Amino acid sequence: MNIRCATLEGEAVDIKINGSNIESVSPATKSPCAFDDIDARGLSVFPGLINMHSHAPMTLFRGLGDDQPLDVWLNEYIWPAEQKLTDELVYEGTLQACKEMLASGTTAFNDMYFHLPAMAQAVKDSGIRAMLGLNIFGNGDELDKLDEVMNLGVPVNVAPHSIYTVSEKGLRRCADACVEYGLPMHIHMSETQKEVNDCLREHGCRPWEYLDSLGILDKLGKNIIAAHCLHLSKNEIKLIGDHNITCVHCPNSNLKLGSGYRFPMIELIEAGANVTLGTDGSASSNNLDMIEVMKTAALLQKGWRGDPTVVPAQQILSIATGGHSIAPGQPACLFLSNVKNLSDLVYASHGDSVVMTLVDGQIVYKAVG
Amino acid sequence: MNIRCATLEGEAVDIKINGSNIESVSPATKSPCAFDDIDARGLSVFPGLINMHSHAPMTLFRGLGDDQPLDVWLNEYIWPAEQKLTDELVYEGTLQACKEMLASGTTAFNDMYFHLPAMAQAVKDSGIRAMLGLNIFGNGDELDKLDEVMNLGVPVNVAPHSIYTVSEKGLRRCADACVEYGLPMHIHMSETQKEVNDCLREHGCRPWEYLDSLGILDKLGKNIIAAHCLHLSKNEIKLIGDHNITCVHCPNSNLKLGSGYRFPMIELIEAGANVTLGTDGSASSNNLDMIEVMKTAALLQKGWRGDPTVVPAQQILSIATGGHSIAPGQPACLFLSNVKNLSDLVYASHGDSVVMTLVDGQIVYKAVG
Repeated sequence: MNIRCATLEGEAVDIKINGSNIESVSPATKSPCAFDDIDARGLSVFPGLINMHSHAPMTLFRGLGDDQPLDVWLNEYIWPAEQKLTDELVYEGTLQACKEMLASGTTAFNDMYFHLPAMAQAVKDSGIRAMLGLNIFGNGDELDKLDEVMNLGVPVNVAPHSIYTVSEKGLRRCADACVEYGLPMHIHMSETQKEVNDCLREHGCRPWEYLDSLGILDKLGKNIIAAHCLHLSKNEIKLIGDHNITCVHCPNSNLKLGSGYRFPMIELIEAGANVTLGTDGSASSNNLDMIEVMKTAALLQKGWRGDPTVVPAQQILSIATGGHSIAPGQPACLFLSNVKNLSDLVYASHGDSVVMTLVDGQIVYKAVG
Repeated sequence: MNIRCATLEGEAVDIKINGSNIESVSPATKSPCAFDDIDARGLSVFPGLINMHSHAPMTLFRGLGDDQPLDVWLNEYIWPAEQKLTDELVYEGTLQACKEMLASGTTAFNDMYFHLPAMAQAVKDSGIRAMLGLNIFGNGDELDKLDEVMNLGVPVNVAPHSIYTVSEKGLRRCADACVEYGLPMHIHMSETQKEVNDCLREHGCRPWEYLDSLGILDKLGKNIIAAHCLHLSKNEIKLIGDHNITCVHCPNSNLKLGSGYRFPMIELIEAGANVTLGTDGSASSNNLDMIEVMKTAALLQKGWRGDPTVVPAQQILSIATGGHSIAPGQPACLFLSNVKNLSDLVYASHGDSVVMTLVDGQIVYKAVG
């Protein structure tokens, strides 16, 4: 397959795709497109966006309990609703989420939820890439399901919910399972100041120091994916950086829930962390639009630091795409947008600007008309 | 004209429009729509959004000098570009801005720029409502044009750029002109900490205390429209509130330029100010999407205050629409959106969700397809 479109630099190119990879990128020839080529002149091509923290089925709960205090939102809205979920509902919610992500340029996501067989089926039916986290609470009894979910045909990870909902025993069991099965750990960390305060009271140290005291950082290192990471001390930033841990910034969710806004993006990158972006679930972010997340993340860094030069458009795109580019050998996970350039993509547009999305060389979304 | 659609509460209604006003709003009858009715069942109706601070022609400069320091952005990008503007370019830029606003649910805007005759023509050609500010610098020599711009057929205001670009003499002349011609004053105020610091050094008081010392607050009171108002002392908030001044919060522009983020929305409202929203020009906000501004404004308040309950969706809509509603006697300035409810409008969607926009009872935008 060949796609004729424009790169970030405005150059018209022919992108040749072979199987699931980009084989070549060359200046567009003057010859007409072949019958089976995609003639996308006038559209710009970007590497696929990677949503590194979501709860896809919560698309069913979009708008549920908006503007409520966090405890009311969880106790009176979200948790009761989750009790009523079935495999069928989770399949529908996940499929809707996958379609929404593909339609807004996201080609892969990393999730954390329940009913993984139903989620895996929706992922396969949609054509998106995903890694599904098996959500763990308490002492980790859900780990019994690990053998089963390893065979779903979709990559999985072990997802202890947080240090305040999983016991020390549960966290240790999760880490051991990650080592045994060779899986990443996916966890919410340092999301609220309350989490930090509670940890200090209960364990005498801050959340990342607590995880370190359990030996989990040394055991798993860069195989830890930590969502939020808003409230960090200098020592915690050093711990995260030294272990090359992946942090997922979810600015829309953090703002909406009043969790915080001073994500130490620059400090984490300098320390050696792998900084990424996510939407969180639609119950708190209300949509799964990673183009919107790029804008919020970049603007928030400029705003709270009082410096318009930090996190320029090129950097936030690189963060949102896992450093992928439109180049030979890269996976053919990409999207075509009707924007003219990178500035318009990041600062002026939304997911609606996406016209076509490819995952592993397959067209998985195409706008009508 | 009759429109059959859904209200915020999800109720199907028939909205009867007579001339430029809403005549009646009644539960939708079971009879079919008449030939000339708008059958918009499945769409939700909202009052038109009011963009209270923009520089419409700067749509020509979208993306120019992104991510640059403020002084470099102004000196090396924006001001040189503005030197090259002609009536023709300003007309094109304004028309593009008006179309972008109408296509995203904005039915009126308050502007500040140059080349007002060209701008007025574009406003009239687009069908949007507008008030155009005559931009004033230095000693206010531009005031000589006031008689001319009063006759453009579009409401105007007197727009001294700021306290640091207009002299004391110029500010006094602007205030006198406002009184003489019965016009509002439109000014940038308290946008950056530097503006506050410079004012303290030059005038020995803060920006609003300086304006007050010139007698301008007592003279014009609620006829002042002040963009930004980010860096305010308690005394300044009291001054603004006591004089019922209109403050325009432009969160996307403020964040992108690194100007600040702690807009004291709640304190200003409590003090008696009229709080409104704006995009600012597309050179700093990159688009004119007031639906996006509603989300950023609400989320930012929740985020920096650490409280998810402040500024709920209904309040931000009321702020963005000047308190208008879909009710008999209200102006028929409204838009139809494909969202299901208010939460989806504010938190999940963007301007792209707008399907049709009416200004004064006339259809001025209709999505294709």
